[in-house]
Amino acid sequence: MTVVQPVAFVRNSRKGQEDDNWGDVESRIELAPGVDPVSLEGIEAFSHIEVVFVFDQVPDEAIERGSRHPRGNTAWPKVGIFAQRAKNRPNRIGTTMVRLEKREGGVLTVRGLDAVDGTPVLDIKPVMKQFLPREGTRQPAWVDELMRGYWGTGPGH
Amino acid sequence: MTVVQPVAFVRNSRKGQEDDNWGDVESRIELAPGVDPVSLEGIEAFSHIEVVFVFDQVPDEAIERGSRHPRGNTAWPKVGIFAQRAKNRPNRIGTTMVRLEKREGGVLTVRGLDAVDGTPVLDIKPVMKQFLPREGTRQPAWVDELMRGYWGTGPGH
Repeated sequence: MTVVQPVAFVRNSRKGQEDDNWGDVESRIELAPGVDPVSLEGIEAFSHIEVVFVFDQVPDEAIERGSRHPRGNTAWPKVGIFAQRAKNRPNRIGTTMVRLEKREGGVLTVRGLDAVDGTPVLDIKPVMKQFLPREGTRQPAWVDELMRGYWGTGPGH
Repeated sequence: MTVVQPVAFVRNSRKGQEDDNWGDVESRIELAPGVDPVSLEGIEAFSHIEVVFVFDQVPDEAIERGSRHPRGNTAWPKVGIFAQRAKNRPNRIGTTMVRLEKREGGVLTVRGLDAVDGTPVLDIKPVMKQFLPREGTRQPAWVDELMRGYWGTGPGH
């Protein structure tokens, strides 16, 4: 058992848990009270950051521990919760790489973060190209169908 | 405040907190007792997975909340803890994308996971190309120097 504390919170216009069109969403990531803005020093030298956050609106009883059809769509195979990125997962942790637009003190402005307003942030990491897959990646066809409208037409991500 | 529970543990040959040559390391990710292997069903259709883990060997007093020179090397700029990926960070969370070699029931074999033996895993996610940065990334020069020996000569990652 590990206790984690938010280091920041997401502020944006997305209040509900909508599934699609996240690419255009601009978010502010505001450091939590007591977190020193010096902890962000130099982050503006990176074009992208990785945000580790909590899907805190998912209630306990909604957490899937086995397998399910992604988005409940039976046209797609039933796969384990760890073989998909759905929010109702054990520990409710989300991770997304986003474009860093600017830093002002303890506030980051990013584009393409798929988290609703008020989301607690557990960590912020710079995206380093050496941490991206070196070679091409392989994924099943259902992912491409599911992701079709996820970012929408936005330039984000 | 959020309480998280390990869903799996890392098993490998790396006992100490060495900094470099992680690329060749083969690890087993074994689901924790009580976690149903069906939660991994279909993950083998992905070439890479993202592992969210806890740097649980970092003691409280070692956690950096401000800024520091990466690896204490004064040749590199002093940057905030959220502008680097060092392990002694608030919440001690690590995230790494690794090559998935195989799945056997509740055990995944991966290559290039930079976590020591016994590390608790909080989440496992498939790497989807739509979640990787769409365009090229930009990063400061010190990162390339620091990362030079990180993966070593291994094919991993």
